[in-house]
Amino acid sequence: MPADSLAQLAARLQAFAEARDWGRFHAPKNLAAALVVEAGELLEPFQWLTEAESRALSAEQTEAVALEMADVLLYLVQLGNQLGVDVVDAAWRKLAINEGRFPVPGSDEAR
Amino acid sequence: MPADSLAQLAARLQAFAEARDWGRFHAPKNLAAALVVEAGELLEPFQWLTEAESRALSAEQTEAVALEMADVLLYLVQLGNQLGVDVVDAAWRKLAINEGRFPVPGSDEAR
Amino acid sequence: MPADSLAQLAARLQAFAEARDWGRFHAPKNLAAALVVEAGELLEPFQWLTEAESRALSAEQTEAVALEMADVLLYLVQLGNQLGVDVVDAAWRKLAINEGRFPVPGSDEAR
Amino acid sequence: MPADSLAQLAARLQAFAEARDWGRFHAPKNLAAALVVEAGELLEPFQWLTEAESRALSAEQTEAVALEMADVLLYLVQLGNQLGVDVVDAAWRKLAINEGRFPVPGSDEAR
Repeated sequence: MPADSLAQLAARLQAFAEARDWGRFHAPKNLAAALVVEAGELLEPFQWLTEAESRALSAEQTEAVALEMADVLLYLVQLGNQLGVDVVDAAWRKLAINEGRFPVPGSDEAR
Repeated sequence: MPADSLAQLAARLQAFAEARDWGRFHAPKNLAAALVVEAGELLEPFQWLTEAESRALSAEQTEAVALEMADVLLYLVQLGNQLGVDVVDAAWRKLAINEGRFPVPGSDEAR
Repeated sequence: MPADSLAQLAARLQAFAEARDWGRFHAPKNLAAALVVEAGELLEPFQWLTEAESRALSAEQTEAVALEMADVLLYLVQLGNQLGVDVVDAAWRKLAINEGRFPVPGSDEAR
Repeated sequence: MPADSLAQLAARLQAFAEARDWGRFHAPKNLAAALVVEAGELLEPFQWLTEAESRALSAEQTEAVALEMADVLLYLVQLGNQLGVDVVDAAWRKLAINEGRFPVPGSDEAR
């Protein structure tokens, strides 16, 4: 199973929640709340670090951060499941908007 | 280009930031801060809704939420770029941990 | 010492940080990051509760929430210390702005 | 009216919400969600600043930050109203806990 397939992750999370009868908890409002809680946990190890220190994490620190990033992604995918949103597709659309908003300095678009 | 490839999104974001010389801003600490800011914006449209209302968004509301979800994912991928973390791979590892932690009621694992 | 004096709390926090030589960590950026981390911890116990359940916490749950609220206030006051901002004064100003923005229905201001 | 009295702010906020019939929205869960949203907005102006820049805000930037701090405090006080929690009292209790947890280096408590 290719690790990069978010569609497969979405299907597995759907089955995971259904097997545990968690659908009643997984209102989009609740998933969005859980997501910001995890985003806070992701920021926590960085809060007293300098920027330079945050660029030089140990392997152990990086793995801890990776698992917090995972929690954010898992809720993002579950929220997508509930809302019928393909978050990767949305990200490509948003990136196109951002590219229009912030043209590369010196490029034709920036003139 | 398949829309579900986060690896391609990661490459495009890397080029996007480099073209704008934003690498100096993109310390992991700053990206984690930007991510929680976006997670707050994602929660905002839900804050006064009931759970039931959050399950019945209009198409317009859903698209606005999708673009906030996109912002979270874009920072998650950029943070992965900076830390050398494959966030989808981390999500699969975390999901395996969660499956061990919350066995399905009535299953062999739960006994 | 009257418990409601934030000015006294601010002075005590200043002394607390100085005694531990924490001033170098307490850049406004870092305090704002720590504050949102605590705000996430405050939301955490509510994330899967219904609104009705959140209105009916036990005494023990309420005390746990109170200590998370305290953490948010402690960082808010420390941020005020660093920026020279009196947060209670700012709250009165913001409340006056909000009262203008959301007139009472049926009142003279709402017409 | 002394600006530092949170008790007076709490009473005014209670009247403000009642006049607008907002009590039905103000479940503790919703107020905690609104609070973290505001905490994210408070972090936003700092996200790309260096720590040094965050210590040297202009008067205009400081005022904008002060009003975001105000929003956090207003929700903290409203949450206290709903839960029957005196947040300043809780902050003194939490500070006492923290003083025990982080003794001053070289002090009797640290030995």
